[in-house]
Amino acid sequence: MGIVLGPNRYGKAETHLVRIYRDTARHSIRDLLVSTSLQGEFGPAHVSGDQSAVLPTDTQKNTVFAYAKEYGVGEIEDFALRLARHFVSDTPSVTGARVEVDECGWDRIEVDGHGHDHAFVRRGPDLRTTTATVQDGDRAAVESGVKGLVVLKSTGSEFQGFLRDGYTTLADAADRILATALEARWRYERPEGDWSAGYSQTRAILLERFATVHSKALQHTLWEMGRAVLETRPDIAEIHLKAPNRHHFAVDLSPFGLDNPGEVFYAADRPYGLIEATVERDDPNRR
Amino acid sequence: MGIVLGPNRYGKAETHLVRIYRDTARHSIRDLLVSTSLQGEFGPAHVSGDQSAVLPTDTQKNTVFAYAKEYGVGEIEDFALRLARHFVSDTPSVTGARVEVDECGWDRIEVDGHGHDHAFVRRGPDLRTTTATVQDGDRAAVESGVKGLVVLKSTGSEFQGFLRDGYTTLADAADRILATALEARWRYERPEGDWSAGYSQTRAILLERFATVHSKALQHTLWEMGRAVLETRPDIAEIHLKAPNRHHFAVDLSPFGLDNPGEVFYAADRPYGLIEATVERDDPNRR
Amino acid sequence: MGIVLGPNRYGKAETHLVRIYRDTARHSIRDLLVSTSLQGEFGPAHVSGDQSAVLPTDTQKNTVFAYAKEYGVGEIEDFALRLARHFVSDTPSVTGARVEVDECGWDRIEVDGHGHDHAFVRRGPDLRTTTATVQDGDRAAVESGVKGLVVLKSTGSEFQGFLRDGYTTLADAADRILATALEARWRYERPEGDWSAGYSQTRAILLERFATVHSKALQHTLWEMGRAVLETRPDIAEIHLKAPNRHHFAVDLSPFGLDNPGEVFYAADRPYGLIEATVERDDPNRR
Amino acid sequence: MGIVLGPNRYGKAETHLVRIYRDTARHSIRDLLVSTSLQGEFGPAHVSGDQSAVLPTDTQKNTVFAYAKEYGVGEIEDFALRLARHFVSDTPSVTGARVEVDECGWDRIEVDGHGHDHAFVRRGPDLRTTTATVQDGDRAAVESGVKGLVVLKSTGSEFQGFLRDGYTTLADAADRILATALEARWRYERPEGDWSAGYSQTRAILLERFATVHSKALQHTLWEMGRAVLETRPDIAEIHLKAPNRHHFAVDLSPFGLDNPGEVFYAADRPYGLIEATVERDDPNRR
Repeated sequence: MGIVLGPNRYGKAETHLVRIYRDTARHSIRDLLVSTSLQGEFGPAHVSGDQSAVLPTDTQKNTVFAYAKEYGVGEIEDFALRLARHFVSDTPSVTGARVEVDECGWDRIEVDGHGHDHAFVRRGPDLRTTTATVQDGDRAAVESGVKGLVVLKSTGSEFQGFLRDGYTTLADAADRILATALEARWRYERPEGDWSAGYSQTRAILLERFATVHSKALQHTLWEMGRAVLETRPDIAEIHLKAPNRHHFAVDLSPFGLDNPGEVFYAADRPYGLIEATVERDDPNRR
Repeated sequence: MGIVLGPNRYGKAETHLVRIYRDTARHSIRDLLVSTSLQGEFGPAHVSGDQSAVLPTDTQKNTVFAYAKEYGVGEIEDFALRLARHFVSDTPSVTGARVEVDECGWDRIEVDGHGHDHAFVRRGPDLRTTTATVQDGDRAAVESGVKGLVVLKSTGSEFQGFLRDGYTTLADAADRILATALEARWRYERPEGDWSAGYSQTRAILLERFATVHSKALQHTLWEMGRAVLETRPDIAEIHLKAPNRHHFAVDLSPFGLDNPGEVFYAADRPYGLIEATVERDDPNRR
Repeated sequence: MGIVLGPNRYGKAETHLVRIYRDTARHSIRDLLVSTSLQGEFGPAHVSGDQSAVLPTDTQKNTVFAYAKEYGVGEIEDFALRLARHFVSDTPSVTGARVEVDECGWDRIEVDGHGHDHAFVRRGPDLRTTTATVQDGDRAAVESGVKGLVVLKSTGSEFQGFLRDGYTTLADAADRILATALEARWRYERPEGDWSAGYSQTRAILLERFATVHSKALQHTLWEMGRAVLETRPDIAEIHLKAPNRHHFAVDLSPFGLDNPGEVFYAADRPYGLIEATVERDDPNRR
Repeated sequence: MGIVLGPNRYGKAETHLVRIYRDTARHSIRDLLVSTSLQGEFGPAHVSGDQSAVLPTDTQKNTVFAYAKEYGVGEIEDFALRLARHFVSDTPSVTGARVEVDECGWDRIEVDGHGHDHAFVRRGPDLRTTTATVQDGDRAAVESGVKGLVVLKSTGSEFQGFLRDGYTTLADAADRILATALEARWRYERPEGDWSAGYSQTRAILLERFATVHSKALQHTLWEMGRAVLETRPDIAEIHLKAPNRHHFAVDLSPFGLDNPGEVFYAADRPYGLIEATVERDDPNRR
């Protein structure tokens, strides 16, 4: 057996673009981290060191900045699609492109009860994100999401009746804190749509379900979140949820003559549970 | 000359306490990072290894959790003062205590237009912070502040007429982005007061001044921020401001036939300017 | 179409285990970050909240600690395999397990020219890593690697003759700094072998190739690294290399009347190139 | 009382300079993070926005790069002093300068048993550091140190006979793991000397003392470290040691029928003890 080049790709990661719109005195701001990645006919670049088919990552970065001026940013999904399509269409050696954009939100600073024209304060800490992929001409896909959505509920969460083996010491918990930094990514059926509405509504559903579902486990909450999104948004094909279980342990205060009925907790860093689930549509053709 | 022990202190850093108030169905949450540090008669602990005057850092951590139950958290300034006073009053070997508390904010999750009773989402990314110090009986001081207040203005900022030497290449900027992650710490005249009002009003002034001052430099903005705080809050003796200048460089788009009138920026990570200034009251007795 | 649960898994991430061997006065230390993740019949845990098939992540953590005592750590590959096999064999609902272990290295502190018996200093910053997966009974696979191997060469690297389009401004570089924080992961043909020798030799080959290949691009260097590994180690089926291109830009010193023939560089943080390549054996049966 | 500007300073933080020496085929590399900070007559810059006395932080960065070429880097202490003296001597408005340099170490990559001429691998994770300050003409001071020196001993450490109060639950430990990420900073008597020898010997003493002192507490170890440094190096006036106590808790394995005689530990992240101590010379003139 010989030795050959397998799957490979390259690009520019984390280009930090800030785009100001200043056509009127009321500016607006877009703050994006853009990562591009290309696939294509790059065998010679590896095997013989011939770079003639390689568009430099520096050029990819330049393109991100130039497109922000030429076409504006618009919805991050459209910005990512436009960049991905450009790389595939306009670069002969490129057969596939993936463009990921994380957007950091800013609010207007309040002055005398009104949002200021050109001064902003970071909203946070969660980010809106999207990944557009284009392959083989114009086969495009868009996966959007939210990262770092930190949520906690102080009751309405249990974890009981789980499997026990010889290494189990955990007791049933009828009422515990549930906390996570949610990462959700949902794939749209088609690479077009009202991206903003899709994002806002999905984020709102995720929050609402987290709050109102009586949780029997983080798995259970994730399922209910994902199901509600798919029920509400027919344009979403599937959703992937990734949730670290940020453990909050009730502190034993009995040595100090104090009880602790779910009031004083130690928030641990590591280790943490890590729960991942996909909720999807049941496609009879796929079974 | 002999060799002697100089200044020393020890404590428990970053105890992550979450306190839930659940007396009614409408819970509330307090999320604190608490660091305690003690000074005192700890020479033997170092020089001969005799620990009989050393209250373990583990005990300090226990005290943080126990006090959150016994006395509740209340204002972080009062919580920090109570802990610091306890260590100094109740531990014979301790002559001074410093307790620092960072508070992370949470908002109620909105469900049907109302804040939920027991589900929360992290506000952010800035933190409210305080440091209480108690020394020699009950000489107490409180310094409160805000950390990580990330702000940006897209115009209304210049940097011109600066000193030039043989290593200067920077051009005058009549209109530039000004951005920072502000850290402000203000010392109260006395260790008592309406801490919440002090915090909210000071934070609001800092934001308002950042927005409305036409900045001739970050130094100029910091001065105007500090001055406005002292003018408004007679209970604040001085304020220290620390502001990394998060540089946003306009991208040169001319190679692509595009102009860039302050619209497309590259946000740099390092290096960054770092500006620090104290604004204080002019005490004739001190001069 | 209905809505169904898709792929899912859960586990305990980043259990930080330190294992001391103290059978003689000459201790040894193993410092591991262990992440376990299980797949199986967890539909009811999500859909109806029934946790009776779910082995808690807390139990997984306990098992990591208990196994470190019962069986010792040994090679991280064997430790990961033993844990993964246990979860699949001994838990009826579990059909697949993935156990990832990162090992942090320690050297003995030198005292009078000899390594001390029980005092250690962290080696670093790179980590040895492995991922063992077991599925459907005992179908096991092992992928080992190194993370954070930070390397730099000050010459012997060029990047020339690349593709240019209308957004290209980069000039050919006949002699540049090449620097990266390499992550390499190689899959063994079979889940057994002399893991330590495999690791040490592969790491040495990667370093040697980085140093001695005259690089025509980071892609070219990665290929040569991967090829050399496969040529030397018949037990390795494929290797995946991921390398951020840590750009070092020569500073323009001409405004100060100084030339800069590749001597003074600014090391940038972001953006960075990101190059990924797999080198594999050419399996005629797979074509 | 009026409102006035108090202490203030500004500079450029974390300029990442890489300097290659390539006068012969055997290159060498210096990898530095340089932070400069100036004090002086900057009142108008704040109060009226007049920047005519302000040397831009961009110029400070340029100077770092230019000096690396003009004068070379040499010892980081000399590099920092040269920069600090320049800012104070050559800038009329500057009365004080502080220059901090962190140096990251690199080893030559081994090829065929020899260190390669121009390929390097990061040593680590600890950094050599220095801070030079120059004030009022040429009053210079140098404080050097080491950061991130991660050490652990698996025995030879106890913590017993400590003070107990009503919040104490910790038991005496006759044999425990002691681990820290040491930060040491020592002030030289005079701003000149054999910096490299000072660094190497001090670092070696710190490690040796950590290893061989039977520790009765981290405080005790710090004292012994500091004392040994002052006894050995008459050119060092004082040393400040800062050591997070990285707790390693023995895991209770008794639920699994296993004992744990100091073999299996959980390494905790937070909270951590934080111990700080200065060891200095007893100056009769100062008492």
